Amino acid sequence: MNPIKNAFYAQSGGVTAVINASAAGVIETAREHGDKIGEVYAGRNGIIGALHEDLINTSAEPASSISKLRHTPSGAFGSCRYKLKSIEENRLVYQRLMDVFNAHNIGYFFYNGGGDSADTCLKVAQLSTRTGYPIQAIHIPKTVDNDLPFTDNCPGFGSVAKYIAISTREASFDVASMAETSTKVFILEVMGRHAGWIAAAGAMASDDRTEIPIIVLFPEIPFNRTRFIAEVRRKVEHHGYVSVVVSEGVADESGRFLSDQGLVDAFGHAQLGGVAPVVANMVKQDLGFKLHWAVADYLQRSARHIASKTDVEQAYALGKAAVELVISGKNSVMPTIDRIRNQPYEWKIGTVELSRVANVEKKLPRDYISEDGFSITRRCRDYLQPLMLGEDYPPYEGGLPEYVRLENNPVGKKLGTDFSL
Amino acid sequence: MNPIKNAFYAQSGGVTAVINASAAGVIETAREHGDKIGEVYAGRNGIIGALHEDLINTSAEPASSISKLRHTPSGAFGSCRYKLKSIEENRLVYQRLMDVFNAHNIGYFFYNGGGDSADTCLKVAQLSTRTGYPIQAIHIPKTVDNDLPFTDNCPGFGSVAKYIAISTREASFDVASMAETSTKVFILEVMGRHAGWIAAAGAMASDDRTEIPIIVLFPEIPFNRTRFIAEVRRKVEHHGYVSVVVSEGVADESGRFLSDQGLVDAFGHAQLGGVAPVVANMVKQDLGFKLHWAVADYLQRSARHIASKTDVEQAYALGKAAVELVISGKNSVMPTIDRIRNQPYEWKIGTVELSRVANVEKKLPRDYISEDGFSITRRCRDYLQPLMLGEDYPPYEGGLPEYVRLENNPVGKKLGTDFSL
Repeated sequence: MNPIKNAFYAQSGGVTAVINASAAGVIETAREHGDKIGEVYAGRNGIIGALHEDLINTSAEPASSISKLRHTPSGAFGSCRYKLKSIEENRLVYQRLMDVFNAHNIGYFFYNGGGDSADTCLKVAQLSTRTGYPIQAIHIPKTVDNDLPFTDNCPGFGSVAKYIAISTREASFDVASMAETSTKVFILEVMGRHAGWIAAAGAMASDDRTEIPIIVLFPEIPFNRTRFIAEVRRKVEHHGYVSVVVSEGVADESGRFLSDQGLVDAFGHAQLGGVAPVVANMVKQDLGFKLHWAVADYLQRSARHIASKTDVEQAYALGKAAVELVISGKNSVMPTIDRIRNQPYEWKIGTVELSRVANVEKKLPRDYISEDGFSITRRCRDYLQPLMLGEDYPPYEGGLPEYVRLENNPVGKKLGTDFSL
Repeated sequence: MNPIKNAFYAQSGGVTAVINASAAGVIETAREHGDKIGEVYAGRNGIIGALHEDLINTSAEPASSISKLRHTPSGAFGSCRYKLKSIEENRLVYQRLMDVFNAHNIGYFFYNGGGDSADTCLKVAQLSTRTGYPIQAIHIPKTVDNDLPFTDNCPGFGSVAKYIAISTREASFDVASMAETSTKVFILEVMGRHAGWIAAAGAMASDDRTEIPIIVLFPEIPFNRTRFIAEVRRKVEHHGYVSVVVSEGVADESGRFLSDQGLVDAFGHAQLGGVAPVVANMVKQDLGFKLHWAVADYLQRSARHIASKTDVEQAYALGKAAVELVISGKNSVMPTIDRIRNQPYEWKIGTVELSRVANVEKKLPRDYISEDGFSITRRCRDYLQPLMLGEDYPPYEGGLPEYVRLENNPVGKKLGTDFSL
């Protein structure tokens, strides 16, 4: 067996506008160290690719394609939502992973994802201590929710923040023009079921030079209809209009999601609904203002066309750092973004033990939310602003961005067996 | 009274990402012809500004601010939804307009809007023939709906088309990555209640180099649930995922809007709802696929950050042309975009009599829609593609686009009277 071990890389959970930049960082850096790292095999659809021995040979991709990953949104190798149970509960799965890794001489495991993925990566890292199988596992952080601990911020979030701040500013200019005789309230639903980081970015649309009346509804603040409606009325009376940025995770005092309103259609069928129309209906019923509402959904996390340059650079740097960490002999760690200062913004790469990261959720601190619970503080503003800095436009062809699709050629299977999840 | 007449300019109806570029074209061109055109007074909130004698003195704005209008979305002077009745029905309104114009020595009337606004502009133009009041009225086309006749396309539409095509491509890359274990269907609701031009742009996300499974639901094609669900199943079985672009104006065979589903909340209150969640619920009920849906709403028409360069240039050129038309003595006309050729795209400014434009709606031709009613034809593609060409990025400061807000200083009132609408 070749003494130079191969690497396994996979993308996990919800994808982002910059997760492929991390992939580029891993693959390009590994290619620079051919003396220490052999092939980089990507898992097709995350860890599932490893379990099915469905590996993608990234070495077959030309350098030009890999470099285009830097400006291509989504997960180039496919992602998955699949959480590994503990080794005790699920010996067969871990044995299968080791069989596949062993068959393909894989000694390095890079998992690119959020909190659940960090937990999966930690369990793989423990294979070396628990079973003696020689593997070094590094978790590369990624989540638009920005809820991972120890890292100052998470790749993917800065670009969503930029998109939501820009969209809120643009839509607010629009409604301000219409308010005299038409729409007075605009409502934008954003992601973040448990943490209000993305919602907070909506408040960034307003700043000292361009003031905009904005109400933010955070998942961290129990929703109170009376207080909210009063604030809408107050802002419309004062400014003529208002924009509302509402997190999908907003819940009432009893902890029930606002989006869970038991909607039924004309036939009595229960209906899915977002929180934006729910809030819109409250404003219409209580105040009668003409309004519009939007739900950004996937548009916000895939909007590579207006990604934050800072975010792209950090995503790439973390992929690069992951490779350098295994070369330096590390296992069971996650490279982090450490903030050095805000003005001018400076950051560096740090590391944290994976055992401290897994299954910990970083919510928006209360002192990042204004006293009244409807906006953000200067402290939050100082934190968010650098993450949105810089534009990193993709190349365009015929009016549309050119995003790469890799060949994704499979690696020949070496195990005769399949594995059912 | 000064022999050099002043001009009145106003913005009407829904605003766009580029209507302010037309305003810049009007104001900058008028400033170049100070020997023929005096001040340019803008109506605050459209024609309503004239009726209230609430005029904005654009001459007070520095050239640097006016030039920034070119990259600022929304209506810088405010817009309105207010349709003038016929002169017979509404003599008082027209008399008031003439009193205000006369008091401020206004001889040129520029109205920047869509179909209803063209009708208003036509009626103002008729004042010269009906009453002898010396006025030249020019309509400057603007509408994201792209439904004005005689002009090849309408400023505002090209930028929405670009935004929807890019967003559909980005979200499709996202869902493709998730499809194996999670989301298989993505649904995007777009504007266009009566015409499917914007929905058609969603199909542009897929092209020969980047094929994407997309189903478009047009307002021109009666919705059939059975056929739609079968097409969703077919595309998911073949590609693993599908993106659905649905126009807000989609209606069933009986002509009823799909969005009008008689939704009620837990308390039995009727609820507003978009068409995206309605379609999402059908897919969930009939196929059980995990799905996501988005509603672009105002985000699509205010997205100046990714405006089409072609659109910006045409919007500006039409404002410029309007001024040149009055200088050449024209009245009651609308400057148009005339397409010379597709490859390479060339266009020029033409003109059409306003009487032929008012109240005519240009729908998507049937031969622009594919046989099965779920996509677009090559003919439609060849029409849409040039309108999305080129990027025209606004300047950024601290991660956000810098959009201008004018001083909008009022012109001193000369009439002692007010006017109630």
